[in-house]
Amino acid sequence: MNSDTETVDITSRARVIKLLLMDCDGVLTDGRLWLTSDDDEQKTFHARDGQGISLLHRAGLQTGIITGRKSSAVDRRAHDLKMSYVHQYAKDKVKALEEILNVAGVSTNVCAYIGDDVGDIAVMHRVGFAVAVSDAVAETKQAAHYITALKGGHGAVREVCDLILKSQGRWDELMKGFD
Amino acid sequence: MNSDTETVDITSRARVIKLLLMDCDGVLTDGRLWLTSDDDEQKTFHARDGQGISLLHRAGLQTGIITGRKSSAVDRRAHDLKMSYVHQYAKDKVKALEEILNVAGVSTNVCAYIGDDVGDIAVMHRVGFAVAVSDAVAETKQAAHYITALKGGHGAVREVCDLILKSQGRWDELMKGFD
Amino acid sequence: MNSDTETVDITSRARVIKLLLMDCDGVLTDGRLWLTSDDDEQKTFHARDGQGISLLHRAGLQTGIITGRKSSAVDRRAHDLKMSYVHQYAKDKVKALEEILNVAGVSTNVCAYIGDDVGDIAVMHRVGFAVAVSDAVAETKQAAHYITALKGGHGAVREVCDLILKSQGRWDELMKGFD
Amino acid sequence: MNSDTETVDITSRARVIKLLLMDCDGVLTDGRLWLTSDDDEQKTFHARDGQGISLLHRAGLQTGIITGRKSSAVDRRAHDLKMSYVHQYAKDKVKALEEILNVAGVSTNVCAYIGDDVGDIAVMHRVGFAVAVSDAVAETKQAAHYITALKGGHGAVREVCDLILKSQGRWDELMKGFD
Repeated sequence: MNSDTETVDITSRARVIKLLLMDCDGVLTDGRLWLTSDDDEQKTFHARDGQGISLLHRAGLQTGIITGRKSSAVDRRAHDLKMSYVHQYAKDKVKALEEILNVAGVSTNVCAYIGDDVGDIAVMHRVGFAVAVSDAVAETKQAAHYITALKGGHGAVREVCDLILKSQGRWDELMKGFD
Repeated sequence: MNSDTETVDITSRARVIKLLLMDCDGVLTDGRLWLTSDDDEQKTFHARDGQGISLLHRAGLQTGIITGRKSSAVDRRAHDLKMSYVHQYAKDKVKALEEILNVAGVSTNVCAYIGDDVGDIAVMHRVGFAVAVSDAVAETKQAAHYITALKGGHGAVREVCDLILKSQGRWDELMKGFD
Repeated sequence: MNSDTETVDITSRARVIKLLLMDCDGVLTDGRLWLTSDDDEQKTFHARDGQGISLLHRAGLQTGIITGRKSSAVDRRAHDLKMSYVHQYAKDKVKALEEILNVAGVSTNVCAYIGDDVGDIAVMHRVGFAVAVSDAVAETKQAAHYITALKGGHGAVREVCDLILKSQGRWDELMKGFD
Repeated sequence: MNSDTETVDITSRARVIKLLLMDCDGVLTDGRLWLTSDDDEQKTFHARDGQGISLLHRAGLQTGIITGRKSSAVDRRAHDLKMSYVHQYAKDKVKALEEILNVAGVSTNVCAYIGDDVGDIAVMHRVGFAVAVSDAVAETKQAAHYITALKGGHGAVREVCDLILKSQGRWDELMKGFD
């Protein structure tokens, strides 16, 4: 899908990222919701996405979630993975982005964001590296610098983690720890 | 799949819709059921379908569910999305349709319905815009004016929401709110 | 997949069926198991399979489940669908078949069975119409008179129900009830 | 995918296996995690994988799980299938491998291992027959002698069980029990 010029652009954008933010439903999950009787909800996370986020952390990058919904499962997953920022029930995702950037002390150009739906477009227009999952809606794909090969909840987040780490020349060093 | 003539027909049918009704299992979900020990059942809804229904509401349209089954999860999802009409355990779906049209004060030609199985055919024969999900059974597809590209529970409902809003010329205006 | 000769064979086998038996995991479900903490297990059934079984019952046929596992969810699903025979924890599926045939008062040639794994082969060798789901293991497919187009848990059972009803010339009459 | 030379290599490696070890998430499951409120987690196992493991046991081979995560569901599945070795929360998978080999009294060359992610590579480099599931990450596939046709949680483990049993000339004898 990407021409040579686009690949250069993607690599140069990914190379400087210090903070990877992402939507939850449809990105860290396949978008499916189980609404439970206690007014909470369940959703499934993917083990290989978790490994990617852990690799990012090992390389010194930070991560976070901005989601319009609210569930205890997201808190547990973020805690499980030691993610730094979790903004749930974020009715204004741009405001959440600004708060996170302020606390993290980084600018938009070193921030990446992964989305799947129209509610992610405003944030994607503001960050240095905007990514849409392969099953995102058309408008969200149009707002993206990069569209993943994998679907949300099926390894799309991992694909972005690996891309960032490889662009930054950190991959081979990290892989030595797994030999 | 659609010829030019069919596209014109679909657009003219979608353009006048004020009320979108739908079956639940196999349409708002992928058809899978978890039967729980308290005589209730679980099923999964898709976040992107929810966004589509919210967009319809923002544009002033109404929505509802007509399902032959009964579960607390459907009530929670409908409440979550602020859907106007929920008829569960509807053994006669045409009767449920008529009751909804009566309360909504609209006629069949401005009503759309999305189905996946033979129990949806009678309603589909009566509404102005009948839609079958891509994995519907053959007889239900034959009763449809439009067959979605996506499967039930995997964004088929969202596809219909976007189609209706675009046919009505409401899309660009709605998208401005996400920039 | 089927030549004309095979189609004739399948139709003639399906035409006489009075009793449809089936395995559960991988046939009525996609094979996935959630093992719960109370020594029970969860699995997902498909709404469209349920509709097919209801259509068979309406046409006067009987149905049943023979499974090597044991869970309360299978009892609930069988009860929900008004299936006549449920043999769980069946370590000898041929013995279960014989018991069911005895109670039903029918012979093997009017009995169909749907399987997905090697534990289903012995029963498939004994019934008049043996069916394997499309994702069955190779040995089970070899034991089948018919292999479904759909996967287990994704409508394979429904496909067999419709095939039987159409072979018996009951379909058009049944569909009139849905108009 | 495999040339004739590779097929010979795979068969000769599989022929001597006495112990099949595997990762859990992404191998025995599709990688999806439900994080439950009691600090435990749920994941789905496949019935046909279970049948494969039972066939291995019937042929006198041993099996085990080495996973970096921890959940009661894995204990239940291993117990259900009568697997000999379960090492959960294994932060050093090579150490877990060595402990298992020591207890089992076998050497690395008769041990097979199935993995899907970078945390499995070190073990895969040490065993006689290293397998990656078809949806494993690229680095893990590179460390494998064999890559399955099926995905993790969708029958990949069963595929390996059958391959081992057929390579050892045990298949036809085992199948006689299912006739």
